[in-house]
Amino acid sequence: MISASQSKLIRSLRQKKYRDQLKLYLAEGEKIIGELAVSSAPHAHAIRQIFATGDWIHKNRELLHRSQLGAEEATPDELKKVSNLVTPQPVIAVVSMPERPVNPEELADNPVLAFEAIRDPGNLGTIIRTADWFGIKHLICTPDSADLYNPKVVQATMGAIARVALFYLPIEEILSAPELRDKVVYGTFLEGESVYGAALDKNPLILFGNESRGLSDRYDRFIRKKIAIPSYSADGIGSESLNLAASVAVICSEMRRG
Amino acid sequence: MISASQSKLIRSLRQKKYRDQLKLYLAEGEKIIGELAVSSAPHAHAIRQIFATGDWIHKNRELLHRSQLGAEEATPDELKKVSNLVTPQPVIAVVSMPERPVNPEELADNPVLAFEAIRDPGNLGTIIRTADWFGIKHLICTPDSADLYNPKVVQATMGAIARVALFYLPIEEILSAPELRDKVVYGTFLEGESVYGAALDKNPLILFGNESRGLSDRYDRFIRKKIAIPSYSADGIGSESLNLAASVAVICSEMRRG
Repeated sequence: MISASQSKLIRSLRQKKYRDQLKLYLAEGEKIIGELAVSSAPHAHAIRQIFATGDWIHKNRELLHRSQLGAEEATPDELKKVSNLVTPQPVIAVVSMPERPVNPEELADNPVLAFEAIRDPGNLGTIIRTADWFGIKHLICTPDSADLYNPKVVQATMGAIARVALFYLPIEEILSAPELRDKVVYGTFLEGESVYGAALDKNPLILFGNESRGLSDRYDRFIRKKIAIPSYSADGIGSESLNLAASVAVICSEMRRG
Repeated sequence: MISASQSKLIRSLRQKKYRDQLKLYLAEGEKIIGELAVSSAPHAHAIRQIFATGDWIHKNRELLHRSQLGAEEATPDELKKVSNLVTPQPVIAVVSMPERPVNPEELADNPVLAFEAIRDPGNLGTIIRTADWFGIKHLICTPDSADLYNPKVVQATMGAIARVALFYLPIEEILSAPELRDKVVYGTFLEGESVYGAALDKNPLILFGNESRGLSDRYDRFIRKKIAIPSYSADGIGSESLNLAASVAVICSEMRRG
């Protein structure tokens, strides 16, 4: 069962204030908890407590054994009471946030996506999942962005949260680090060189702006090339912009297709 | 002001049952209503009633005049009471659904995206916006898909709903039409030929499956080529799938980049 104090703790994790204080967040559902349980990445997200139906525990004995994890049995009704989801899942877990220091050398050696003031949690979660699909494991967000541990972000990553590192920091700060002196930096804009002809570097840092305002000019001095996804509108009338997560998917695909 | 009966009507449009009965839906926000007001496409979505703050009406006198539309002044509080959004907008409109019959010749002559049992309204809205960006104006969904006029879909299209035609029908039915005999049909799968080398037809019909189950085998006999977006994962461990809207963005981009 889920005790009153456990239930209170779990529900407190809906608020960023308590997540930050406790360094804990809530993950819900078989897929994400399966991924977190087997994740052996350095600085892994460690599962602290699992609450699940008897049925889930029975089916996942091997996973629990292999990951050296215990699970507390709970009724569907108890799980529903603490869930953030419309359709409650048979398993939830309280997870420790990884303590992962920023390593400028690592950012210099790997492709990086960087976001200015990303606002929508669903966008952020989808972007993490997309980055993971395309093998991009390093993301940066400005500190005024949506919180990685917001339940909507965690769910939308579909488990990719276990494999992608996201750092909150002022982007200028990292771009000014001596290790990133030679980093090829692209900025994405509505007006810019077509990404289809841009022959992208294999190891760049790519900047994306806020959903409604786009990218501000404060990074201009770092940008090697401004790139854009051409729109294709026979009559010149079409959408004014792509959804941010859709743009990220297209740009990542262009970077990887060669 | 918004009268009690108007308010009741507007709120009833949250339910598909009433939307279908009245052939009306609700649009919220300056951007989408601006797009609907100027849309001159055949079978256009016609605005029936606008409710807006005095400020919005004052600023948009010219738009209203040009589109021969009136607007009823309402207080922010009245607008908030009928809104579906967390952040209510200064303008809402009751809009007529266009009566647009399926025209197989039109589907034969234009690129088409077709979706089996798409479930998530946010996904559907984002996909409509993405299709519009890439100049794809014809979509088909199986009848068990999310409803185009669900407020979440309408909002996520960001106005593209005014420019893209979406038909609900069994996909086999349209693929069996004589007009589409020569249509090049692609199916998107996790396993298939890499879309990067597939030299896509410029005028295809592309099939996408349900968010969790993927594409069923019932369309196999129509499919010319099974295509996939390659994942890029250095260590072989990565996301099991892309978000559906992200996949659509990548495939549309591949079709248009040439």
